[in-house]
Amino acid sequence: MTETELKHVPEDVSVVAEPSHDAEDRLTPEFVTGVLERVDSGDAEGARALVEPLHPADIADLFELTPSDRRQALAAALSDLLDGDVLAEMNDYVREDLIDALEPHQVAEIAGELDTDDAVAIIEDMEEDDQRAVLRALAPDDRAAIEEALSYPEESAGRLMQRDLIAVPEHWTVGDVLDYLRGNEDLTTDFWEVYVVDAAHHPVGCCALSWVLRTPRSIAISDVMAREQTLIPVDMDQEEAALKFQKYALISAAVVDQSGRLVGMITVDDIVHIIQEEAGEDILKLSGAGEGDINEPVMDSYKSRVRWLIANLATALVASTIIGLFEGTIAQMVTLAALMPIVAGVGGNAGTQTMAVTVRALATNQLTQSNTWRTIRREIRVALLNGATVAVVIGIGVALAFTNPQLGAVIAAAMMTNILIAGMAGVLVPLTLERYGADPAVASSVFVTMTTDSMGFFVFLGLAAATGLTG
Amino acid sequence: MTETELKHVPEDVSVVAEPSHDAEDRLTPEFVTGVLERVDSGDAEGARALVEPLHPADIADLFELTPSDRRQALAAALSDLLDGDVLAEMNDYVREDLIDALEPHQVAEIAGELDTDDAVAIIEDMEEDDQRAVLRALAPDDRAAIEEALSYPEESAGRLMQRDLIAVPEHWTVGDVLDYLRGNEDLTTDFWEVYVVDAAHHPVGCCALSWVLRTPRSIAISDVMAREQTLIPVDMDQEEAALKFQKYALISAAVVDQSGRLVGMITVDDIVHIIQEEAGEDILKLSGAGEGDINEPVMDSYKSRVRWLIANLATALVASTIIGLFEGTIAQMVTLAALMPIVAGVGGNAGTQTMAVTVRALATNQLTQSNTWRTIRREIRVALLNGATVAVVIGIGVALAFTNPQLGAVIAAAMMTNILIAGMAGVLVPLTLERYGADPAVASSVFVTMTTDSMGFFVFLGLAAATGLTG
Repeated sequence: MTETELKHVPEDVSVVAEPSHDAEDRLTPEFVTGVLERVDSGDAEGARALVEPLHPADIADLFELTPSDRRQALAAALSDLLDGDVLAEMNDYVREDLIDALEPHQVAEIAGELDTDDAVAIIEDMEEDDQRAVLRALAPDDRAAIEEALSYPEESAGRLMQRDLIAVPEHWTVGDVLDYLRGNEDLTTDFWEVYVVDAAHHPVGCCALSWVLRTPRSIAISDVMAREQTLIPVDMDQEEAALKFQKYALISAAVVDQSGRLVGMITVDDIVHIIQEEAGEDILKLSGAGEGDINEPVMDSYKSRVRWLIANLATALVASTIIGLFEGTIAQMVTLAALMPIVAGVGGNAGTQTMAVTVRALATNQLTQSNTWRTIRREIRVALLNGATVAVVIGIGVALAFTNPQLGAVIAAAMMTNILIAGMAGVLVPLTLERYGADPAVASSVFVTMTTDSMGFFVFLGLAAATGLTG
Repeated sequence: MTETELKHVPEDVSVVAEPSHDAEDRLTPEFVTGVLERVDSGDAEGARALVEPLHPADIADLFELTPSDRRQALAAALSDLLDGDVLAEMNDYVREDLIDALEPHQVAEIAGELDTDDAVAIIEDMEEDDQRAVLRALAPDDRAAIEEALSYPEESAGRLMQRDLIAVPEHWTVGDVLDYLRGNEDLTTDFWEVYVVDAAHHPVGCCALSWVLRTPRSIAISDVMAREQTLIPVDMDQEEAALKFQKYALISAAVVDQSGRLVGMITVDDIVHIIQEEAGEDILKLSGAGEGDINEPVMDSYKSRVRWLIANLATALVASTIIGLFEGTIAQMVTLAALMPIVAGVGGNAGTQTMAVTVRALATNQLTQSNTWRTIRREIRVALLNGATVAVVIGIGVALAFTNPQLGAVIAAAMMTNILIAGMAGVLVPLTLERYGADPAVASSVFVTMTTDSMGFFVFLGLAAATGLTG
């Protein structure tokens, strides 16, 4: 199936062998230290010599791995290497740090080199005054493009798209397209598909470059193009656009405005970051860790996390109040106090399992109205099996350890009930939040934990009281 | 910045207006029901008419949304639409379901149409006997390609790559490349870059198709190609390959064998699924939810989840034992039993936050040896702030509610301590697991929860006992 003959080569050729990287393609601590030592000793030349061979993404990593109080010195030493490509690859917080120290005209110079989407990413987080100063320092056409992009909502396709693209009229032949591409110096080289548009600049098809290359010059482009193409509305949320790229295995997609005109293009390399971010975000949201970025300033992390801890405190008070109702029962048999966290804890874990599955299925559009009831029934079945297993284990264990079969039966029944409740809460809470337009990843955890804690204590202590358990 | 003039178009053109899809590009329940009703009433023709306009990814979704006991009937009605592209897009479990019902020669027919990587995805999960039967029924060259792919480890680049690619010698001109592409009917059309190889078939550069198209025929391809290219070793884990695609914004990458020869190509559309899966996996692993797929058979979900619940039960017993040590203290003041889950619970939440951040930072290669200590110090600072805030709130609240300042002081001190311990456990547990080669997402949760539960109870009850608190 390969296109050319494979010939035997005897010697072993090491494929990736830069000493600056470890086996997992991360910069080594020795390399980072080496660069910073040269910067500290005033050897900017030596630092530059080390860094110059690196890919812009690695230079961005180098800044991220440098302690924040030494980044300005590093930037000064490497100033000519710190270009737009490096900034575009950089973590938002680290970039803001560096950008803040630059003059507006320096930022404008960097932004002018970049595609619209990368320029917007650099400018959108600046203070309004600084932003205006940078925009004023830009060339008029770059400025217009960036201002238009900034007019779209944050995290929308309009912010993400680049306006440089190749659009050709539908009556052209493949030869016309080839001549146009080769004859116009100013055209972008960063494209993978050609869009075919009608007289009103509405997309009517798209054509992968491999098709342009494999087709004789005389054939009409409209005979080669794919007529079915995924169009991204300019105000579509970036997460939805990312799901489309994934679902339809797109390399690039045309972005259209409200009237259906072609206004830009999104390429998959910009989307890959979003897919990765959005998929990874759920875990951070579920745990209440906010942005969850290790480069975030401490005070920002504190603010986003403490809110959830306070919310958690409030739900813990509910559970505590429930325990308070049974103080008389506990006073009669203190062992109950030692056993009750088991029922609540394992129930909480079971709820978290179901919740994680449900949140992922919702995020990837796998769970829709068509299979909601089936999924709920499925989770209840799993919960029944899990509950039965854990209940038998803990029931027998407690009955033997305390030589108290009644205590064993109570904890087994409570465990079974709580795991079942956990399974239902784990699927119903995210579904309900989604139904009412809330992000299921953000608030599910608080409600599910409150349910499993409260019900765990209530069922266990309630059963103990009702069956007249005493030590 | 756009390449062609934009003309004003008055009418509003709706971009995506298929009634089969809802606003988020999911199939509507009405559509799914409509298809299944036609299948049930024997109207295969009508079902096919509804489904035919759909993209293969949507047909795959239709099968996923259909209850498992009706999928065979749907497959029978739509047999001619159920081709390799649809199967390649389908959820693994749903596909296995369908494949199991097909004869080996039918599977072979489908696999023969596909790229190697998609064919491998279909065949690799089959029982060994069935797999052999399918391989026997394949054409010899397809069979050889698939057998070679299957010889690479699961989840490696070798399984993921396609062997159809365009490789050209370095002495060719752009014109030679164009003539070669246009003159050979058998070449693949699924490529975005041309690889340039030396006489030993080692890659020496790559050239995006846009560069081939924008360059005059007479120029040597070696003057246009990029000499720096990311090579993927054939045995590299797919997750690592995905990180490379993301870091270097790749569209496709050459895969090389141990001796450095070009043996295949991976394109970004195959990688996007992996990035999404791997990033989403962490949340499922952390919660102990196994594969976490809503299409997984109930017994498989049960088996993967119950293991973690039993592990959680074991760690809950540790916490329970610690409480048991203080039964005398609790007997003197039963209120302690009602308050102690607050200390453990909020501590657990704080630990989960830090753990989620650490696991994500490790998974995305943001946390390396160079910034480990900085990250630990950072998390301790956040924990001190969080701990102080929550301690003040709960301390004052409890002191007032129970008119017992000493009790308030004890719970505040315990909360502060436990949140600090939680912050350290949340970052140190995943780091330690990673250092010893374990997947930090898999086992971190159990250890962190055990720490925060046990220490929460121990510190709170221990302080209460030590300070001689009584009701």
